[in-house]
Amino acid sequence: MEELEKAQQEKLKAARKDKGLVLVLTGDGKGKSSSAFGMLLRSLGHEMKTGVVQFIKGKWRTGEQLFCEASSDIKYFSMGQGFTWQTQNKEEDIKRVNACWSEALKLLQDENIEFVLLDEINVVLSFDYLKEEEVLNALKARPENQHVVLTGRGASESLINFSDTASVIESPKHAFDNNIRAQKGIEF
Amino acid sequence: MEELEKAQQEKLKAARKDKGLVLVLTGDGKGKSSSAFGMLLRSLGHEMKTGVVQFIKGKWRTGEQLFCEASSDIKYFSMGQGFTWQTQNKEEDIKRVNACWSEALKLLQDENIEFVLLDEINVVLSFDYLKEEEVLNALKARPENQHVVLTGRGASESLINFSDTASVIESPKHAFDNNIRAQKGIEF
Repeated sequence: MEELEKAQQEKLKAARKDKGLVLVLTGDGKGKSSSAFGMLLRSLGHEMKTGVVQFIKGKWRTGEQLFCEASSDIKYFSMGQGFTWQTQNKEEDIKRVNACWSEALKLLQDENIEFVLLDEINVVLSFDYLKEEEVLNALKARPENQHVVLTGRGASESLINFSDTASVIESPKHAFDNNIRAQKGIEF
Repeated sequence: MEELEKAQQEKLKAARKDKGLVLVLTGDGKGKSSSAFGMLLRSLGHEMKTGVVQFIKGKWRTGEQLFCEASSDIKYFSMGQGFTWQTQNKEEDIKRVNACWSEALKLLQDENIEFVLLDEINVVLSFDYLKEEEVLNALKARPENQHVVLTGRGASESLINFSDTASVIESPKHAFDNNIRAQKGIEF
């Protein structure tokens, strides 16, 4: 027990590096985007400059969208009508993804932005609507102290390996199973 | 495949209930509190009235604390010096937990508060510093449309069963393993 504690203490001492982190939030459970927006809230608490791109947007006005639009400390971009999810509109989807990616690139090249949230980007990567190599290259070339959070189910093994921190979220129980619809402030 | 889609559609149609949810976020992974603060951000986006009690507080000033203190739409309470985690201060810890709980109770009885975050309460429950029965009773008696989020590792099976939604978060990879210390805006 004592040895374990000692090992933990040494690990704590060794953990002295400051650096911008790449965080991947994936899995089938609830809480990936929520978690990312919680980090955004923390960053705002520290008066950091932040940027958010939402690669997929629901039909309704979400709380995070309303919040981001109202804040002058967040550069916010989401794609107009949202991802269509319909194979017959694949071209349209890819066009929208590219529009989002070009906004994301601006953030990843901006020395003033300390926190970047690329919401649901893992999904469009898993659909191959955006090239992973391009994303990885932009992450490698970004300002040294910039944190980037990538959310969405289906993150690839290579993206997880590239990240500093990856979390996989599973939900053993969900209100939806009991016929309760998505609730304002919780799911959107 | 078609049948599956039909079943999903019917599930969606059935999901029409509006009600305040109890959400439990637990597990050993990163992102429990982050996720809860993300829901807080969403609720603020919808201009909902919110309340936050932090049962455990680190030594440093966290981003979420700074954010909550600065917002007039959040009733915020955290316990002074934080949980000591030392068995020799058990009495002091219990006193602090009780102070937090009495603030939490006020929120759980307030019809105007639509979103309540009880951060790290699962931990103090697992230490038996607070009676689970008391918490469950307060949750049952709360305003009908009030959402409550309970975070922290070690949530009991009975709490998970009582909840509408429970998420268990595991982290297969964490920056700390590579000697990178906790980063502002991300972990705190």
